[in-house]
Amino acid sequence: MEQRVSLITFGVRDLARARAFYEALGWRTNASPEDDVVFFQAGGMIVALWGREQLAEDTGVEDGGGWGGITPAYNARSPQEVDAVLAEVEAAGGSILRPGAATFWGGYSGAFADPEDHAWEVAHNPHWTLAEDGSVSLG
Amino acid sequence: MEQRVSLITFGVRDLARARAFYEALGWRTNASPEDDVVFFQAGGMIVALWGREQLAEDTGVEDGGGWGGITPAYNARSPQEVDAVLAEVEAAGGSILRPGAATFWGGYSGAFADPEDHAWEVAHNPHWTLAEDGSVSLG
Repeated sequence: MEQRVSLITFGVRDLARARAFYEALGWRTNASPEDDVVFFQAGGMIVALWGREQLAEDTGVEDGGGWGGITPAYNARSPQEVDAVLAEVEAAGGSILRPGAATFWGGYSGAFADPEDHAWEVAHNPHWTLAEDGSVSLG
Repeated sequence: MEQRVSLITFGVRDLARARAFYEALGWRTNASPEDDVVFFQAGGMIVALWGREQLAEDTGVEDGGGWGGITPAYNARSPQEVDAVLAEVEAAGGSILRPGAATFWGGYSGAFADPEDHAWEVAHNPHWTLAEDGSVSLG
């Protein structure tokens, strides 16, 4: 198994609402309005929105209904950009789980939930390298 | 917010066990054995293993305890590679949630859980392009 992730799928109950949220953040997809799955090209991987029941069945799991121990994160280029992203999220209908604040590891981060209650962290990590194309490297 | 994901963190109860599982699949980290977080460089993003309680607190959520509607996936280069990855996973102490099988969308996929019950899909998608470096593109 190569050391990579190809796709993250978010299970959703209201696909149109979830799609509209990410589009309001500036994300773009070629999915048609009637498609039952929405794919976003996200750097070298894909982010998908798909029915949560179908995803649970396809994954072979019972749906606990809440948070399941996986948090995706978006790394910003500065603490100011963390706050700007959180403001964009709020304007787009997401909710702020934790406002931006300095972290114990020397960075700055906050967290939000999308309209389907999927939680993201938004962070500035001065110890990592964030390239022009958005890719992130350790150290 | 740019259209990308920088990091996926898996909350774990037994960090050494989770780390050993991904290392048994061939993943490599520079983390020290005494570190309380393990980072894997995964293409242009990072995969982290961190205490599930700390992650829930940091994310600003209650931990539902089960699956939470997010499934990461690993895209393989052939149906045969899907089966090979699932066999590796089983040998490394993971559990098979769904054996490899043809899918309704013309691909081939299965699913597994790591020792912390984080579920992954393993898929071959003939409609997507999987580059030499492991990056995936729609179409």
